[in-house]
Amino acid sequence: MFSVIMAGGSGTRFWPLSRAGKPKQFLEITGQSPLVVETCARLAPISRDSEIILVMGDGHLPRARELFPDRKVRLIGEPVGRNTAPAIGLGALQARRLGCSGPAAFLPADHFIRDPDTFVDALRLAEHAAASGGIATLGIEPVRPETGYGYIRRDREALPGGEGTVYRVRDFVEKPDPETALRYVSAGEYYWNAGIFVASPETILDEIRRHLPDLYAGLQRLEAAWEGPEFDRVIRDTYAALEPVSFDYGIMERTKRDLYVIPCACGWSDVGSWMSLYALRRDAWDENLNLIDGDALPVDCEKSYLSAGGGRLVACLGLQNCLVVDTPEIVLVADLDRAQDIRKVVAQLKAMGRKAVL
Amino acid sequence: MFSVIMAGGSGTRFWPLSRAGKPKQFLEITGQSPLVVETCARLAPISRDSEIILVMGDGHLPRARELFPDRKVRLIGEPVGRNTAPAIGLGALQARRLGCSGPAAFLPADHFIRDPDTFVDALRLAEHAAASGGIATLGIEPVRPETGYGYIRRDREALPGGEGTVYRVRDFVEKPDPETALRYVSAGEYYWNAGIFVASPETILDEIRRHLPDLYAGLQRLEAAWEGPEFDRVIRDTYAALEPVSFDYGIMERTKRDLYVIPCACGWSDVGSWMSLYALRRDAWDENLNLIDGDALPVDCEKSYLSAGGGRLVACLGLQNCLVVDTPEIVLVADLDRAQDIRKVVAQLKAMGRKAVL
Repeated sequence: MFSVIMAGGSGTRFWPLSRAGKPKQFLEITGQSPLVVETCARLAPISRDSEIILVMGDGHLPRARELFPDRKVRLIGEPVGRNTAPAIGLGALQARRLGCSGPAAFLPADHFIRDPDTFVDALRLAEHAAASGGIATLGIEPVRPETGYGYIRRDREALPGGEGTVYRVRDFVEKPDPETALRYVSAGEYYWNAGIFVASPETILDEIRRHLPDLYAGLQRLEAAWEGPEFDRVIRDTYAALEPVSFDYGIMERTKRDLYVIPCACGWSDVGSWMSLYALRRDAWDENLNLIDGDALPVDCEKSYLSAGGGRLVACLGLQNCLVVDTPEIVLVADLDRAQDIRKVVAQLKAMGRKAVL
Repeated sequence: MFSVIMAGGSGTRFWPLSRAGKPKQFLEITGQSPLVVETCARLAPISRDSEIILVMGDGHLPRARELFPDRKVRLIGEPVGRNTAPAIGLGALQARRLGCSGPAAFLPADHFIRDPDTFVDALRLAEHAAASGGIATLGIEPVRPETGYGYIRRDREALPGGEGTVYRVRDFVEKPDPETALRYVSAGEYYWNAGIFVASPETILDEIRRHLPDLYAGLQRLEAAWEGPEFDRVIRDTYAALEPVSFDYGIMERTKRDLYVIPCACGWSDVGSWMSLYALRRDAWDENLNLIDGDALPVDCEKSYLSAGGGRLVACLGLQNCLVVDTPEIVLVADLDRAQDIRKVVAQLKAMGRKAVL
């Protein structure tokens, strides 16, 4: 089974650890390896390295070549980010060229999954469900009334037969308000949309042809130039002209294909903020609920996340619910509950022209 | 008029800015110059440079020579700290040798004074009061019921005549509990004891002879060896054998001399903690009551003190009442109200054997 991993994000939520040149998927924030490496390792039971396609910003290709030195994993660089639909189209093109005729998995590079076996089992089930030309998606069992994600609503009854529970998708729904989110969670028919799809490249490309014809035309130009001397120029020109569009909005909400959702309780997190990283690493909390990375000394501190990676001692006294991130060039101190607003800090630095710290 | 400045402190209250090798008096914490330089500058109207004697730990002599390169200010190094009585005795000895027969000022190196003119006027008045063999002390008008200082209680009536208000001292009193402190402040007859004395070296040495005979014997040995080839060895041996004792406890509470107190509302602060430094620098607060030194960016922060001296950007988000001190080797993040407890952090690091960060 092929896997197309989208590693194009350039978020600022983990600033100052993530920077313009080093986005989240290339950081070792949940374990020993960068998220993108953990994502590939997690797929080992279903995809050989040579069946893994990584789509990323071309500026990150050198780093990716270091991380995957045996050259088996396929790397594709996008000259500029245009959201997920072009990245998925590009990955589907490459997978088809490499001989993938059955369903492939399309998934983000920067998620955390506590239980990889459950995750892989769900992908296998999704492969099975998508074998006859439909699109299957993983539905993450919601564990809180999250307003930051889109939801997938399933049919009441599961499909009969098969190796596991598969539902038809009734609806993809936008990020809800808190009240609606609470209703979704208690209803039991809603899942978080983690942006993980399984479908054959042929299906993907056909849907792009129907619903995103400009993107399809661009992909045709790319295929014509593939591995030729003009490819770099063609991909630059093509991408420059593309409208950014997400696969969810551009395809999933419009397609007439059969859509399936596989319920998946795999301890998933999109590691969307310092706060969510703090929460998912609860196994590493000390007795005062502090999370300590590196040379940090908490004195009378509680529920604080101290990340010392700047080669300095980080000493803390009397803190509650505080985030301290020390890096060689920047130290960030924030209310941990305000972790979502780190983009405000980054935006302000951008407005000040402080490029060196972005 | 001679001035003897005691620059021997080695406190940890401004850790990590103050370190074992760089105590508070050598830091530029209140302005452009180190406190010891500001203290000397403040005395310019009454003491020529050649009439200023600086007593400090001998490890700080190289730094002091850099700060006072013209070699007019006299520098004396103590091989080890033995509290204020030995330092004052040593300074008195040197002043007498240099021909000082009238009253000299004895004062700490690490205080802040907002109104130097008022301060110098008080010293002049003290010189006058101490001219006939007594000891005059400055009484700082208390502005809050502080429990961290000793107090000086004055007689009800001022002395008649003279150029300004001088009282006899009725009592030196220990650091009070909060209730007593409140009573002192509202009574109006109590002053903070800032450890600033004016007396002739002869008077000082005579009182040491009476009340601290061991110290006096040590000072005699030092005088005999003064400027001789054996001086370094003699001062090392002498100091090693001395009991640490404060001038307040050893002399002021026992002397039978006439004691005077000069009320002084000069905007004095002993700059005893990060919190007191934050308070006394209120002129530099931003509109959210933040105090910013160096390259620090507060976003939605209030009443916080951000000191960026580590060559890095210090970015802060959503902080209240927080202290952030960034230095090249250490970053401290603390509840500003807990500034007094920084010694707990330092003590813990000491117990951990972390000498490099002390």
